[in-house]
Amino acid sequence: MQPWKTVSRKTILNHSKYLVVESHTIQLPDGRVLPDWPWVITPDFVNVVAITRDEQYLVFRQTKYGIEGTSLAPVGGYIEPGEDPLAAAQRELLEETGHEASDWISLGEYQVGGNRGIARAHLFLALGAQETAAPTADDLEDQQLLSLGRPRVEAALAAGEFKCLPWATAVALALLAKSGN
Amino acid sequence: MQPWKTVSRKTILNHSKYLVVESHTIQLPDGRVLPDWPWVITPDFVNVVAITRDEQYLVFRQTKYGIEGTSLAPVGGYIEPGEDPLAAAQRELLEETGHEASDWISLGEYQVGGNRGIARAHLFLALGAQETAAPTADDLEDQQLLSLGRPRVEAALAAGEFKCLPWATAVALALLAKSGN
Repeated sequence: MQPWKTVSRKTILNHSKYLVVESHTIQLPDGRVLPDWPWVITPDFVNVVAITRDEQYLVFRQTKYGIEGTSLAPVGGYIEPGEDPLAAAQRELLEETGHEASDWISLGEYQVGGNRGIARAHLFLALGAQETAAPTADDLEDQQLLSLGRPRVEAALAAGEFKCLPWATAVALALLAKSGN
Repeated sequence: MQPWKTVSRKTILNHSKYLVVESHTIQLPDGRVLPDWPWVITPDFVNVVAITRDEQYLVFRQTKYGIEGTSLAPVGGYIEPGEDPLAAAQRELLEETGHEASDWISLGEYQVGGNRGIARAHLFLALGAQETAAPTADDLEDQQLLSLGRPRVEAALAAGEFKCLPWATAVALALLAKSGN
């Protein structure tokens, strides 16, 4: 199996650091050329499923512009330019919850859009979390920090209460990783 | 918790049916206004984790433009305009694998982008799949259909072999749903 090749790329929308759109000229393995393939660039991000020493999952009840109603959500945020994904995950956990964790396990790195690119999602499981400071996050959205036991998290995931795709991914992968222990 | 309100919206890039970008003017609950919030519209899609009567998971080894190298992937594709998500899932399973399934279970509906929108992902678990026809998919990408047992799927997921976010989500949710049976 041969990959598609990017022959050339040009920016067709430069909105801000939050969104750039390119048009790619692509060559297929059989030689055919696709002249105007849209490619979307938004910031890479982390999500962190943090579990305390007494096995409580730290999640938010929050609003997001793209989400209808409120949703449960793990810790998360954009990776700063040049920032290491794990460092971003640790920073977001501390900023948003005031917690630090003793054991960090990667749950993988995923391309959000198989066709359009979109962003890379870096997902983490943080074990042994404990509160070491007050939260300092200044996100625009309302959010409320909750501590939930595994059965409640499993039920919420199955009921669709984690309404955003990467949040559901991180929580599902965390539950699978923990059940394998 | 109050939602953010869309005051107005305008199209700033109308690329094709595959990509439209809008700029939204948003009012926050405290009255502040965000004048130029980028909002990305790409087609809603389905992914289907199909399991045969003898408990084999139907997955592809495939290339995708947005993915480096090859990846494992469940069945998936765009929902046609006006098409019911379940009908799209059943159509994609038949087109891509030649299989039909006796039991369809929703694994949920998720917004891909909490901030930018992007698309809605409709994820399904299809049980009792059996071959009833030859595959007819005409996707541009190379793909090879595989039948894998659960342990191999679990190991592949943990090893990051499902490289695209919705594919990992669907597989993780399917494994959790099946383990609860």
